[in-house]
Amino acid sequence: MEAELKEMLNDLDSLKQSLPDPSNLASSILKLQSRVEHLTKLAKSAPVRRTKVQDMSAEVVDSNPYSRLMALQRMGIVDNYERIRDFSVAIVGIGGVGSVAAEMLTRCGIGRLLLYDYDKVELANMNRLFFRPEQVGMTKTDAASQTLSDINPDVVLESFTLNITTVQGFETFMSSLRNKSFRPNKEGSGVDLVLSCVDNYEARMAVNQACNELNQTWMESGVSEDAVSGHIQLLIPGETACFACAPPLVVASGVDERTLKREGVCAASLPTTMGVVAGLLVQNTLKLLLQFGQVSPYLGYNSLKDFFPTMEMRPNPQCSNAACLERQKEYLLVKPAREAAIIAKMEAEVLSVPEGPLHTDNEWNISVVDDSAPERTDATSSGDIYCYMTL
Amino acid sequence: MEAELKEMLNDLDSLKQSLPDPSNLASSILKLQSRVEHLTKLAKSAPVRRTKVQDMSAEVVDSNPYSRLMALQRMGIVDNYERIRDFSVAIVGIGGVGSVAAEMLTRCGIGRLLLYDYDKVELANMNRLFFRPEQVGMTKTDAASQTLSDINPDVVLESFTLNITTVQGFETFMSSLRNKSFRPNKEGSGVDLVLSCVDNYEARMAVNQACNELNQTWMESGVSEDAVSGHIQLLIPGETACFACAPPLVVASGVDERTLKREGVCAASLPTTMGVVAGLLVQNTLKLLLQFGQVSPYLGYNSLKDFFPTMEMRPNPQCSNAACLERQKEYLLVKPAREAAIIAKMEAEVLSVPEGPLHTDNEWNISVVDDSAPERTDATSSGDIYCYMTL
Repeated sequence: MEAELKEMLNDLDSLKQSLPDPSNLASSILKLQSRVEHLTKLAKSAPVRRTKVQDMSAEVVDSNPYSRLMALQRMGIVDNYERIRDFSVAIVGIGGVGSVAAEMLTRCGIGRLLLYDYDKVELANMNRLFFRPEQVGMTKTDAASQTLSDINPDVVLESFTLNITTVQGFETFMSSLRNKSFRPNKEGSGVDLVLSCVDNYEARMAVNQACNELNQTWMESGVSEDAVSGHIQLLIPGETACFACAPPLVVASGVDERTLKREGVCAASLPTTMGVVAGLLVQNTLKLLLQFGQVSPYLGYNSLKDFFPTMEMRPNPQCSNAACLERQKEYLLVKPAREAAIIAKMEAEVLSVPEGPLHTDNEWNISVVDDSAPERTDATSSGDIYCYMTL
Repeated sequence: MEAELKEMLNDLDSLKQSLPDPSNLASSILKLQSRVEHLTKLAKSAPVRRTKVQDMSAEVVDSNPYSRLMALQRMGIVDNYERIRDFSVAIVGIGGVGSVAAEMLTRCGIGRLLLYDYDKVELANMNRLFFRPEQVGMTKTDAASQTLSDINPDVVLESFTLNITTVQGFETFMSSLRNKSFRPNKEGSGVDLVLSCVDNYEARMAVNQACNELNQTWMESGVSEDAVSGHIQLLIPGETACFACAPPLVVASGVDERTLKREGVCAASLPTTMGVVAGLLVQNTLKLLLQFGQVSPYLGYNSLKDFFPTMEMRPNPQCSNAACLERQKEYLLVKPAREAAIIAKMEAEVLSVPEGPLHTDNEWNISVVDDSAPERTDATSSGDIYCYMTL
């Protein structure tokens, strides 16, 4: 198209030069008209966006972008899929994991996505999914908003180009999480879940601080610097360990993330590991929001051995985070009532489904299931290691 | 841009009408020129493709698309990452799993990708990653080639718009796998691995037939019709069960895929499950090709419980597939020498790394790790169920 436009400029120049001689003008104008008509055709072949849809239809037609999601209801997996449009999810860090998580939630038709990043797209990011070479130089938030709104215009996108570890960035982050304009009658904060997809310790601590202050459930994710391991973790203030309760697992396993960005040293990364971690993260997000299956408290991915460790971490009564200690106190007050409700629900399920217990959990090594805890008839399968770290 | 062009046509019309009055012409021409300049700017903001690179550099600069992959060498994961450019991978079925697998391999800089599909992109596919609404109506092979070549022009792409379950389609499929022009001195067929990402039994049987005939290692993948489970499986003709050796697991678990496409009935699907399965598939592909970690013979993904069963399946001496029986005979001849080599290698490793033996393979009918088995100090971790099905 550029060459076409250049020629048009030349034509206009010769038109100008022929000004004293109007006899040539008519043919010049005709020539210009045919050029414009050609350009119009070219412009028409450019991307057409799909229009917004009012309701999620379950109709099985090729033109319905939601038919395969609404089918989750007919398959008995989800009671009411369309509830997904009520939910807001905040994604902090739009890198190799966060961008894919954002795309998955967008394609699932999430109600509202809040995106936070301060970085720009580089060619060095092209070994992970999502960003495209033509977006190099754009902010990750702008590039993501562009791609995501093209994919699904039904999703309300809000993007924030900021660093949450700065004072100003943290304040904006907090106020954006508090904003309840999308669903004014919602309890708690303005979002249903925060997904941390950042690549450094400071940013994780900032998300932890914000979520502890707001009593906001969040999920943490991470990928090792050698690119072959990753994890996701559910954090419910007061109920589970917060990020400050325990030495972060990445540090505990011998990787100091603060050294990763040393000059001239870059961490390895793979689209596979990051895609798997994003998939596990968003799958657990869907399970949490749409209430199906079991949400994993912690799930690791060791890709060299295809090993997926699970565990649970209890809050640390000596946690250094004051907001965490507040949430722990609140949780201890509501805990007896909650546990009674869980036991009543489990008993009702045992009565309605005439099956024996699936198995009794085995005990080994790292640590063991507390025998005094209610029996897990649901069970995360005989294969899982459950570590209840009491700190 | 369309509105802009329409106005330009209007301008040209008024220019024509002002022909008898040349005094207005100069200003009209100036107006047109500024319009063209504006259009030129718009055209310049259109996608720019990245250029091909000669060698994979490990240089840590933002403009290097391979820096984070070459870092796998420095991290001690891969001996020689650049070998990836020698490999050809065929992907059959460019749907929810195949398209993402293709994108991952493309971003990893695989040498050559062969893509097979006969379907077109529909809006109903938008709940899975990869295809975009503006590609609706294109063949999946064309749309994929367009996106993948923009992402990484270094990858040699060959796409085949055909149905491998037809006689003609199967013949083209076979001859394309045999074609060794990319690496003429390669042993065996012209590809290093076939990835089956199809959604029906007949297509899987066609891939099985081709791979048995060509003695071609392949990996099978699948996602359940309720969208919440999936699996990958490694098939080495003669050495592991082929797809005809055992009743396919999808059928064995009570799902008849042939009913899925019944009129008015559509299977559910999720970008999460398909993204995870694609990630596990390509991660195992990388492990196989670049020789790191352990390739899983079978890996399931039960997303409701985040449970990942593994098992191995031996070939069935009564398999109905004649080519499989041929491969089994060949394998039995080389087996003693191969096993001796494996034992020698393991003994060498035990001498160099002072660790106990990994474990001895037990044989039984779907069941769990025997308590009397040697302790798994390595390995696929105490958490996994290992089922060795002897058929």
